[in-house]
Amino acid sequence: MPLKNTNIVSAAQTKFGKLEGVTQREMFSEAVDKATIEAGIPKKDIQAAFIGSFIPEMLIHQGHSAPLLTDFAGLKGIPATRHEAACASGATALRAGVMAIESGMYDTVLVAGVEKMTSSTTPEVTEALAAAADDQFESSIGLTFPGVFAIAAVAHMNKYGTTEEDMARVAVKAHKNASTNPLAHFQKPITLEQALKPLVIAWPLKIFDCSPISDGAAALVLTSNEKTKQYTDLPVKIIGSGQASDSMNLCDRTDLTTFSASVDASRAAYKMAGLTAKDMDFAIVHDCFSIAEIIASEDIGFFEPGKGAKALRDGVTALDGDRPINPMGGLKAVGHPVGATGVKQVVVAYRELIGDAGPNQVPNHDTAVVHNFGGTGATCVITVMRRGDV
Amino acid sequence: MPLKNTNIVSAAQTKFGKLEGVTQREMFSEAVDKATIEAGIPKKDIQAAFIGSFIPEMLIHQGHSAPLLTDFAGLKGIPATRHEAACASGATALRAGVMAIESGMYDTVLVAGVEKMTSSTTPEVTEALAAAADDQFESSIGLTFPGVFAIAAVAHMNKYGTTEEDMARVAVKAHKNASTNPLAHFQKPITLEQALKPLVIAWPLKIFDCSPISDGAAALVLTSNEKTKQYTDLPVKIIGSGQASDSMNLCDRTDLTTFSASVDASRAAYKMAGLTAKDMDFAIVHDCFSIAEIIASEDIGFFEPGKGAKALRDGVTALDGDRPINPMGGLKAVGHPVGATGVKQVVVAYRELIGDAGPNQVPNHDTAVVHNFGGTGATCVITVMRRGDV
Repeated sequence: MPLKNTNIVSAAQTKFGKLEGVTQREMFSEAVDKATIEAGIPKKDIQAAFIGSFIPEMLIHQGHSAPLLTDFAGLKGIPATRHEAACASGATALRAGVMAIESGMYDTVLVAGVEKMTSSTTPEVTEALAAAADDQFESSIGLTFPGVFAIAAVAHMNKYGTTEEDMARVAVKAHKNASTNPLAHFQKPITLEQALKPLVIAWPLKIFDCSPISDGAAALVLTSNEKTKQYTDLPVKIIGSGQASDSMNLCDRTDLTTFSASVDASRAAYKMAGLTAKDMDFAIVHDCFSIAEIIASEDIGFFEPGKGAKALRDGVTALDGDRPINPMGGLKAVGHPVGATGVKQVVVAYRELIGDAGPNQVPNHDTAVVHNFGGTGATCVITVMRRGDV
Repeated sequence: MPLKNTNIVSAAQTKFGKLEGVTQREMFSEAVDKATIEAGIPKKDIQAAFIGSFIPEMLIHQGHSAPLLTDFAGLKGIPATRHEAACASGATALRAGVMAIESGMYDTVLVAGVEKMTSSTTPEVTEALAAAADDQFESSIGLTFPGVFAIAAVAHMNKYGTTEEDMARVAVKAHKNASTNPLAHFQKPITLEQALKPLVIAWPLKIFDCSPISDGAAALVLTSNEKTKQYTDLPVKIIGSGQASDSMNLCDRTDLTTFSASVDASRAAYKMAGLTAKDMDFAIVHDCFSIAEIIASEDIGFFEPGKGAKALRDGVTALDGDRPINPMGGLKAVGHPVGATGVKQVVVAYRELIGDAGPNQVPNHDTAVVHNFGGTGATCVITVMRRGDV
């Protein structure tokens, strides 16, 4: 049964990138201001906040961020909770917001995500991010995230013949799309030759196969049907929401060319929406590494297993292709402030759906699927959205 | 309007204390087994998990704990999310579980909390816990948690004449109640003289005014009305749930003798339940420090502001008093594995309500209020519960 009562009435993000001198609370506050007062929604209307943030404890020695952030953003007093699922933190906060509305306990809530990363050194960030894998069995013996996705890449190459060039094409597409997105960390197109430069991080992944370390925040306002008219004539409805988990350990998996949490969460979300992958006009997927986009495009049912690279090669997933994926540039080029990402993905889908994506507008934009993915793929959240007037 | 559809059908905790050689995932798994298979609830019936945990990133270098924990506990694949609000993490997970049921998206869910603390040194734990305060303005310049509550204690002493002896009585009551609770960290009664020994941590708080560093886990199974009969004839209903926030900084508060988040969350929860503090037979409150119990007993409306110490002195809050508070020993003597605490408090209320508290049974047990409190009081969650057959 599709969700019936949850609407997105505004959506905003800060610029993603190395935001020097801007603190976590300042970025958060900027995103909230854009999604509330600048969108004509008084802050006093916000009844509760659900916030995604991955690892501020290790990066800026700040836990218990939710009340701190809401206080700073002019929302003092409201219930404010932080949700954490590594890189899927943002989408778990969204799901909490969806349940808050669907339960009837609230009718106007804020969903936001934030991460301040660039004030830490790269080794500090790598160490912090490694906490998203199993410390007892894998990360403590040296498996960091480029390594995790390199293993998946090798498995995919071996089983399906996917090549380093295919992966490089994910980066080329991402940088091309982001070149017209002023909120992106990188706004410069790159060539296939540049993407293939042997600056190896963890073979076969090279520097351009990896999303960057970024700062940023994103925010959404969700309302019940009754409240929606008050704020907009063109809401976006969340009609399906699925979440699934998997073992944290790669060593407990039977297949490294697919992520079962993505497959299971997609099925649950499509089923709830009463739709299939074929009904989706475009997708936003979690391309933390280039191979992750290829695998996700298969896991969410856009392409058969092993056919993702070919679809990409053939331009099917390009901005002007039949099934656009990451039309504004994805994590790869827009940046990946971890806790913000899952919310920013929905901001992008919202903008595309209401036709507000400027040079990055996809041609068909009635329905979208958003794929947010945590750690080694141990969490996946899928959101199915539809423009409210369809 | 009271919540109508959320029932607790089983509740369990591990022993709290220094659980040497027992890992986070093992404790979690033990609590889950007790709350599911040992209570006659097959694990396959659990559709989603909501988990409270405060700071495993800093204590055991483990983020993204929810899928890791559920996998280890035999619940692989289900949606599993971690919720963090410092010491109120457990109750924010509970609220997420309540919304999941009330939304109709799930009808049988697990709510759990866990923290592994004793594998770290006391300075490491103190540093980790300090992340629950504002790093930019307060904790980074040396304000740790005994300091925060010492400030509240001095304010309360100054305004209301509360004494060090009053605070010591909280500890004496807690240790007395815990002496018959085999799951408590400390099971030894103490005398008022012992509690007053000048082992000062942060004046006026002495060692017995502070809850200990403990390991532990707790778990609940929540079901919709329809599913409840399948598991028990005596459920406990959650009829009210309130959450509120406050500034993280003490320097932004106007009154340090009360916590506005506790007052606001209580009002919201009682209003939802259609009841008042007077209707509550007993309370479970967050006594991380002795003064916190006295203030909480006022903030939740059991006693007028400034009258909490007198009620305690007069035995009103004793196990056999008119308005028992923390009948099994509270955080002070049972222990405070941070993420587990908010769930364990509800486990205790459940056991009291269904009449399963043995020597710690309170005489009147139709309704209860549970107060879980985060950090400097920047988050408070209040839960109002009623025995299902009342």
